[in-house]
Amino acid sequence: MTGQAQLGLMNPDELAAEHEKRTAEYEALVARGLSLDLTRGKPSPEQLDLAAGLLTLPGEDYRDGKGTDCRNYGGLQGLPELRAIFGELLNIPVANLLAGNNASLEIMHDLVVWGLLHGTVDSVRPWSAEPVVRFLCPSPGYDRHFAITESYGIEMIPVTMNEDGPDVAEVERLVSGDPQIKGMWCVPNYANPTGAVYSEEVTRALATMPTAAADYRLFWDNAYAVHPLADEFPPAYDVLSLAAEAGHPNRPYVFASTSKITFAGAGVSFLGSSSENLDWYLGHYGKKSIGPDKLNQLRHLRFFGDAEGVRAHMAKHREILAPKFARVQEILDDRLGASKVASWTEPAGGYFISLDVLDGTAARTISLAKDAGIALTGAGSAFPYKRDPDDRNIRLAPSFPSTDELSAAMDGVATCVLLAATEKLLGS
Amino acid sequence: MTGQAQLGLMNPDELAAEHEKRTAEYEALVARGLSLDLTRGKPSPEQLDLAAGLLTLPGEDYRDGKGTDCRNYGGLQGLPELRAIFGELLNIPVANLLAGNNASLEIMHDLVVWGLLHGTVDSVRPWSAEPVVRFLCPSPGYDRHFAITESYGIEMIPVTMNEDGPDVAEVERLVSGDPQIKGMWCVPNYANPTGAVYSEEVTRALATMPTAAADYRLFWDNAYAVHPLADEFPPAYDVLSLAAEAGHPNRPYVFASTSKITFAGAGVSFLGSSSENLDWYLGHYGKKSIGPDKLNQLRHLRFFGDAEGVRAHMAKHREILAPKFARVQEILDDRLGASKVASWTEPAGGYFISLDVLDGTAARTISLAKDAGIALTGAGSAFPYKRDPDDRNIRLAPSFPSTDELSAAMDGVATCVLLAATEKLLGS
Repeated sequence: MTGQAQLGLMNPDELAAEHEKRTAEYEALVARGLSLDLTRGKPSPEQLDLAAGLLTLPGEDYRDGKGTDCRNYGGLQGLPELRAIFGELLNIPVANLLAGNNASLEIMHDLVVWGLLHGTVDSVRPWSAEPVVRFLCPSPGYDRHFAITESYGIEMIPVTMNEDGPDVAEVERLVSGDPQIKGMWCVPNYANPTGAVYSEEVTRALATMPTAAADYRLFWDNAYAVHPLADEFPPAYDVLSLAAEAGHPNRPYVFASTSKITFAGAGVSFLGSSSENLDWYLGHYGKKSIGPDKLNQLRHLRFFGDAEGVRAHMAKHREILAPKFARVQEILDDRLGASKVASWTEPAGGYFISLDVLDGTAARTISLAKDAGIALTGAGSAFPYKRDPDDRNIRLAPSFPSTDELSAAMDGVATCVLLAATEKLLGS
Repeated sequence: MTGQAQLGLMNPDELAAEHEKRTAEYEALVARGLSLDLTRGKPSPEQLDLAAGLLTLPGEDYRDGKGTDCRNYGGLQGLPELRAIFGELLNIPVANLLAGNNASLEIMHDLVVWGLLHGTVDSVRPWSAEPVVRFLCPSPGYDRHFAITESYGIEMIPVTMNEDGPDVAEVERLVSGDPQIKGMWCVPNYANPTGAVYSEEVTRALATMPTAAADYRLFWDNAYAVHPLADEFPPAYDVLSLAAEAGHPNRPYVFASTSKITFAGAGVSFLGSSSENLDWYLGHYGKKSIGPDKLNQLRHLRFFGDAEGVRAHMAKHREILAPKFARVQEILDDRLGASKVASWTEPAGGYFISLDVLDGTAARTISLAKDAGIALTGAGSAFPYKRDPDDRNIRLAPSFPSTDELSAAMDGVATCVLLAATEKLLGS
């Protein structure tokens, strides 16, 4: 425990002394010449090792249980048996779930593109023919989601993110009055980066609320559906049925993938939606592909066997990840707890911890860390247009480094947080 | 040899007798209750067996020669060593060649989409902001190419296809006068479906000719770059350098894939182009993916070893394919040669034979075949908007069936061609 006190209560002399101390601490940090990376939610090599069995699969037998020759062309929907496994985990009927290639992000991208160029099944015109298209972006959120909408000139509206999901009243106020709001980015379980889990109430409200646009879509990225840090899996609310029962069957597009279950670069992605949406999707998807890589789907099918196989596999991930997340919490508590210049989330799953530092010091903290050899995700990354209105949010990704590296990096980050805060409070 | 004579020279009585005979023949064919498929250029199981080694690769070692952990995220360009192998085969420097997922069609699709929504590096505005966008479509050509442009409302202009490639004078006349022509679909080697190989002169002309549009693009789909039916590989003209030397460095987008080398559904795709185009492509591709499936690329790298490994592999494909193509030629000669109601191509490579029947009888022939249990690609499929102006073209895909099935199917097709022709000549 480094000696510390609540920075905001210090008088100028105390602050000056604190600044001097933190500066020395930072100079020592820089002198260590670290080279550590907390930027992305990448699985560690140890996690990837858990799926080593995939490396020699499928083996000689290239047929799935239906007799399909997985080496050849065809089968836009993906393998039924693998869809059944993930359908069980995601609470989606197999008929409403497709299996794709290695990136669910690609499916999200294509759905935005086809919304723009073709319009959805409920659109009166392609979105690109609208005067403006807007998406709601619970913030902080996932930078790669925001990058897709930004790249196509879709106007992004930040929405407050609470511990149980997006602020439903705010969402309802927005979507009920503005027919140009065509979509919303959602990560319902262990949201990137705060770790929030959408409650059943929030899920129901988002699925059922009236909207001015008939072609409003929830981009429901259930990326961490089976990724708890403790022993209990999160609920898989049936967002498709909730929406359908409220008369909005085509509202949710549900995504999932095995990127953080098997191999980050060589997994299988999933799209769940209404039959009408999937027919529409397949019609357009069939123009760009003769089908996904079925052999990779077969590998995954053989590797897991069934849904229980996936759950058992995730327990092994947990054993690797939970201690890392715990270590981050320890260091943050120890180094920043008493200072009251920072707060952070304590996620029950997923890949990120969201750290809020003293307003106006996130960019400075990240810059100090960079100069000390600690790479953090760029300032504002978790916000639309990379604009953190309070300049206070930092996304921490503890999965990839070893525990030793992680400890060194987090200790360094804490030093940078404290130095940036004393600078700020001194008005320097 | 079935007795036959030149149908066009018969008098009405002879034609009536011929019609009776062909009708009986057709009834016998229907009675056989065949169920055969010549629709798509799918490799046969025997061809897929040639790549059985891939089914247990990469094995325990998941790193490429550069040390990259192919299981994790990253590496938008694909594995350098695999790109080097195909760069040698395609005559493209490794820096100008990317390796992707399992479908080069996806890359073509995305390039059209990004042309529409972003504009190319040479566009003054996105193509979607143009009053009209046109593509040249050498015809007969590849139906999946035409389906992409049709689905996005791009106007397709048929161009005459000669034995040495598209009619260059016609192309030049069109592109020099119309700035709305933004692209052209090309299959330079063993073009789908005629088997034409673009000559060096045609290649040079297409790469260098002046065009009204600065953002005109050759979609150069070298799908059959290493797919001859005899012992000699086709030339790989350096279309990128030809275009660059003429001041059009960004004109060609070159595509290739291993779909018809290893596994049709689980191969690797390639995109070759100028550095400026590739930077632009990667900028947009990076929004939809964190990288292609590098493990599948590593499998291919290990399986082939080097470019000579690919060439040796293709020799084995040849041993399977060449007898099938020869059998089709024999049957067509035997059954249709003397009748003079049909002509067909004798490709030196690729996956198709283009059969021209008596004008106005292709759709009828295909319909007769369907009723006899022989599936042929839909009438007009090889033309933009599926409009075969003469209703005479039928694409034959001999690769998938066994030789016995192929013989039965082709004999049946010949029967249908002759029956449709006699019907037509009788005016029935």
